[in-house]
Amino acid sequence: MKIALAQLNYCIGDFEKNTEKIISSALKAKLKGADLVVFSELSIPGYFPSDCLLFDDFQKKCQASLDQIAEKCFDIPVIVGCPMPNENEGQKPLQDCAVYLYQGKRQIFAKQRIGSNPLCDERPYFEPSAENEILEFEGFRIAVTLGEDLSNWSDDPILIENRMDQLIGKHPNMVVNLAASPFDYTMPKKRLDLLRLTALKHELPLVFVNQVGAQTHLIFDGGSMAFANNGHVDHALPFFEEAVEIIDTDTLYNYRPNADDIVIPEKMSLIHDALVLGVRDYFHKMGFKSAIVGLSGGLDSALVTYFAAKALGAENVRVVLLPSQFSTDHSVSDAEALAIKLGVAYDTIPIKPLFDSFETALADVFQGRPFDVTEENLQARIRGVILMAVSNKFGNILLNTSNKSEASVGYGTLYGDMCGGLSVIGDVYKSEAYELSRFINKEDEIIPWHTINKAPSAELRPDQKDSDSLPDYSILDAILYQYIECSKSKEEIVAQGFDEAVVTKTIRMVNRNEFKRQQVAPILRVSPRAFGAERTIPVVAKF
Amino acid sequence: MKIALAQLNYCIGDFEKNTEKIISSALKAKLKGADLVVFSELSIPGYFPSDCLLFDDFQKKCQASLDQIAEKCFDIPVIVGCPMPNENEGQKPLQDCAVYLYQGKRQIFAKQRIGSNPLCDERPYFEPSAENEILEFEGFRIAVTLGEDLSNWSDDPILIENRMDQLIGKHPNMVVNLAASPFDYTMPKKRLDLLRLTALKHELPLVFVNQVGAQTHLIFDGGSMAFANNGHVDHALPFFEEAVEIIDTDTLYNYRPNADDIVIPEKMSLIHDALVLGVRDYFHKMGFKSAIVGLSGGLDSALVTYFAAKALGAENVRVVLLPSQFSTDHSVSDAEALAIKLGVAYDTIPIKPLFDSFETALADVFQGRPFDVTEENLQARIRGVILMAVSNKFGNILLNTSNKSEASVGYGTLYGDMCGGLSVIGDVYKSEAYELSRFINKEDEIIPWHTINKAPSAELRPDQKDSDSLPDYSILDAILYQYIECSKSKEEIVAQGFDEAVVTKTIRMVNRNEFKRQQVAPILRVSPRAFGAERTIPVVAKF
Repeated sequence: MKIALAQLNYCIGDFEKNTEKIISSALKAKLKGADLVVFSELSIPGYFPSDCLLFDDFQKKCQASLDQIAEKCFDIPVIVGCPMPNENEGQKPLQDCAVYLYQGKRQIFAKQRIGSNPLCDERPYFEPSAENEILEFEGFRIAVTLGEDLSNWSDDPILIENRMDQLIGKHPNMVVNLAASPFDYTMPKKRLDLLRLTALKHELPLVFVNQVGAQTHLIFDGGSMAFANNGHVDHALPFFEEAVEIIDTDTLYNYRPNADDIVIPEKMSLIHDALVLGVRDYFHKMGFKSAIVGLSGGLDSALVTYFAAKALGAENVRVVLLPSQFSTDHSVSDAEALAIKLGVAYDTIPIKPLFDSFETALADVFQGRPFDVTEENLQARIRGVILMAVSNKFGNILLNTSNKSEASVGYGTLYGDMCGGLSVIGDVYKSEAYELSRFINKEDEIIPWHTINKAPSAELRPDQKDSDSLPDYSILDAILYQYIECSKSKEEIVAQGFDEAVVTKTIRMVNRNEFKRQQVAPILRVSPRAFGAERTIPVVAKF
Repeated sequence: MKIALAQLNYCIGDFEKNTEKIISSALKAKLKGADLVVFSELSIPGYFPSDCLLFDDFQKKCQASLDQIAEKCFDIPVIVGCPMPNENEGQKPLQDCAVYLYQGKRQIFAKQRIGSNPLCDERPYFEPSAENEILEFEGFRIAVTLGEDLSNWSDDPILIENRMDQLIGKHPNMVVNLAASPFDYTMPKKRLDLLRLTALKHELPLVFVNQVGAQTHLIFDGGSMAFANNGHVDHALPFFEEAVEIIDTDTLYNYRPNADDIVIPEKMSLIHDALVLGVRDYFHKMGFKSAIVGLSGGLDSALVTYFAAKALGAENVRVVLLPSQFSTDHSVSDAEALAIKLGVAYDTIPIKPLFDSFETALADVFQGRPFDVTEENLQARIRGVILMAVSNKFGNILLNTSNKSEASVGYGTLYGDMCGGLSVIGDVYKSEAYELSRFINKEDEIIPWHTINKAPSAELRPDQKDSDSLPDYSILDAILYQYIECSKSKEEIVAQGFDEAVVTKTIRMVNRNEFKRQQVAPILRVSPRAFGAERTIPVVAKF
C-alpha cells in the first residue's frame, strides 16, 4: 500500500483555503499512486483554533468542509483532522477527531489524550474518547491516533507507555498519528525518540503526519516521518516547509537500513529556519506585505532585519536609522553597511530635535530635575513614535527587536524599543543571538562582524554599556536558563557555582518585570519555555 | 460551636505577611470566642500562584508557613488552605488542600474537582483527590470541601450535583467550603443560588469562606456566608473588604428567618466597588503609591481619574491635560472641573509644538502625503510619551483609560492612549461607563454632567465624533455583548434584529484587532468574559 503524508500549512479558520488545499493535495497524491492520504491533526480548521471552537458557525463550517472533501475526494481514501460534535450531555461539546472518508463511508477516531499544553490547551473544548477502534483498510488494520495519544505517560523516557498499549489488543499491523506538535529546538529529537520507541515496542510501522507553518507565536516544524517496524526511520519529510510525499508500506516490514537514519539539523539551523517561517507566516496570514525595523547598528536589530529580508524579500523591508546625540559613529556605519548588504531601503532621522522639543515641553513640569532614566526612555519612545508613524503612513508592520535576555530582566523601554507587532528574537537569549549571527555569517559577512564583536550598548547616555547594569551575558543567560527554563530556585542556582549577589539581582529583575512582558507582542517561540502563555506568573506576585 | 469566617486579602507569594495575617486573625478570633477558624482556599500562598507553584522553594515556603501556623496557633483549631506535596509517581506534584491544625494534630482534605477556569487553571499543578474524609470536631462531622467541589456538575441549574453527593454517605452534619472565587458582576447571585441549593438539598448548614482582594486583573469579592440547613443565609460577610466574623452553629439548625435574606448590591454598585479594590490592590501589591492619568475631558479618563482618587487618595493622583489643535474648549474646561472637584493636581501641556516637530522630522520621508490616521495616532502617541515621561520622572504609574467597546473594535492607538500599567475600565462597555458615571453622580456632580452628556469624540481631527466610524454605542455594545459574552455567530445576532451590515462590520473589527488586545495592560475583570486569559483567539485566525 502507498500512503501519502500530507504535511501542510493551514490558516486557522480560513475554511475555503484549507479545504481547497486538502482536496488538491489528495487529488495530486492519488495521481502519483497513493492509496491513502493522511493529513495532520485538525487540518480542516487549522491547529489551534482556541476559542473560535466555541462559535456554532465555526463548528458548522468544519462540518461543511468535511462534506465537501468527502464529495470531491469521493474515490480517494483520506484521513483528515476535524472537530466533531459530541452529543453526550454534560460533556465537552466536541471531540478532536481523525475522520476516514471513502466512497461515502465515514469512520471517526477520537483523541483519547486531550492536550493540556498551556500553549494550546485542548481541554476546554474536547471530550476525551474512551473507544479504541481500528481502521480496516485494504487488508491492513490501522491504529489511528492523534497527537498526544502517542505521548509517553510513564515517568521513564525509555519505557514508552501510551494509547498503543490499549490499541495493541485490537491487533493492528500499522500505526498512524495525526499531529500538530509545536516546535521548540528540543522537539525534533524528542519526537523522534518517542515515536521510534513506540514503533519498536510494538514492532509496528508508524506513520506520523505533523502540521507545518506558524500560527502567530507558535511554529509547527513539520518533520513528518514513516518508521519501519524496528523503529528505523524509512522516510522523513522536510522541516519547516510543506510537502506531500508517498511511502510504500512494503518497505516498513522486515526493514533493512540501507542508509544512515535521519539527521536532525543543529540547533542554530533549526532556530534560523523556524524564525524565517515564523516571520513569513505572520505576515502572510495577517495579510501584511512589508516590514519596518528600527536599525541601531547593534546585533538585535541587525538580526531582525536579516530575518525580515529573508522571510519577506529585501524589497518588502524598510529600516530607519534613528541616531541620537549618544549614538556612536560606528552605530550608524554598521547599520548602513547591513542595510546595503541586505539591499533594504533605509532612511535616517536624527532624534535630537525631537528630544529637545520634549525637553522644552516638559521643562515646567520637570523644573530642572537631572537627566535620569526618564530621558533614556524618552529617546527610546521618540524612536517608537517615528517608527509607528512610518508604519502607519506606508503600511509596513513594525517588528520588535527585543531578545530573551532583555525581556527577562526588563532591559527595554515599554512603548519604546518594545514596540512592534511581532517579537522575532524574543525567545532567543543574547548568547544565542551571537551564535545565530555566526551561523548566518558562516559563508559570507551578512551581519557586519563589527556589529557582532563590539560591546553591546543601548546608547541612551554617554559611553553606556549593557555591562554597566547587567552581568556579562554569558553569566546572565546561564542564570536565566536555570531560572526560566528549569524553574530552579535561587539556592539551587547558587549551588551550581554562580555568585549569590548576581543570582539574587537577576531573579529580582526577572520577577519585577513581569508587567513589561505582559504588554509585549507575540514572541516567536523556539525554546521549550518561551514568555507568553506557557509561563504564567501573576504580575503582583511577591516571589 | 462558634466558627470564625476569615475573609482575608492575601499577597501571592508574600509568605511572611500572609502567615502573620493568618496567625493574628486566628488569635483575635479565639479571643472573641471562636472554637474553629476557617480561612479561604490557598490562603497560605495566596490564590492563584500559577507557575510560582513549579518552584521547589515556593512549595517549601508553603510548608514552612504551615508549620509556623501550627506552632503559633497550637491551641486554636484552624482550617487553612495550602498546596500539599503529592508523593504518587506519575501524578501532578501537588494537591490543593484544606489543612486542619490543632494541638499538633493535622488532617488534610484535598480538592477533588480541580478548577479548570482559564483564569486560574489549577490542572497543571494539582492532582485531584479521590478520598472523601470527614473532619470529626467537637461532636460535629464536618464535610470539608474546596472551591469547585461544590460547583454544579449537572446540566440543571436547580438540581445541584457536586461532591456533597459523595460526602453525604459519610453522614456529615455540616459543610465547610474554602474558596477563592473570582468576581464578575454575575457571580454573587450565582454563588448564592448554588450554595443555597446545596445546603437545602442535603439539609445541612454550610459555611463558605471566600478570598477577598485583587490579584492583578482578577478581583475576589469575598461575600462569605453561613447558610442554615434550610438554605437561608444566616450571616453574610461584606463584599470587597476584609472581615473576620463569628457565627454560632446553633442558629444554623431549625432556622427561623427573622429578617430578609441577603440582598446583593446592584450591578453598578458591585462594579464600582470592584474597580476601587482592583486599583488599590494593584498599587499596594506592586509597591506603588501614586497614579497618573491623561485627562481629556471625555468620560473614560474622567472615570479612571475618579477611581484612582477613590482608591489611592486624591493626593496620590496627578493628571495631565494634553490638548491639541483639535481639542475643544469644553474638553479643557470639563477636565479642569473634574480635577478641581476631585482635588487632584493637574498640569497642562499642549502637544501642538511636539506635533509640529514630528511633522518636520518626518517631512522628507512623508514627502507631503496628506493627513490621515498616521497623524491621528501621532497625537495619541505624543501624549503617551509625555505621560510616561512624567511617570518615569516622578514615579506615578500611568493608568490605561480604554473601555471595553474601544478594546473590542480596536478604537484606540497602540503605544498611545493604550499605554498604561493597568486597564481600569477595559472590561466596562461604553454604555456601562455611562451607567457607572450616573451611579457615581447619584448624590453629587462628581463627574461633570457635561462630560457625560456630550457626544463622545477622540478629538484627533476637526469635528471628529466616535459615531463617524462606529455605530451608536447602544447598538454597538449590544452586538458586542452577543458576540463576546455569548459567543453568538453573525447569523444568530442578525436574527435578533440587528442590521446585518452593522453586525458584519462590528465582528470584522473585533477579529481584526486581536493583535492590539494582546499588547494591552492587565484589565480589571468585572464581567463574565473579559479580554485576556479567558478569551483566547489566535491573532492570525481568519474568522
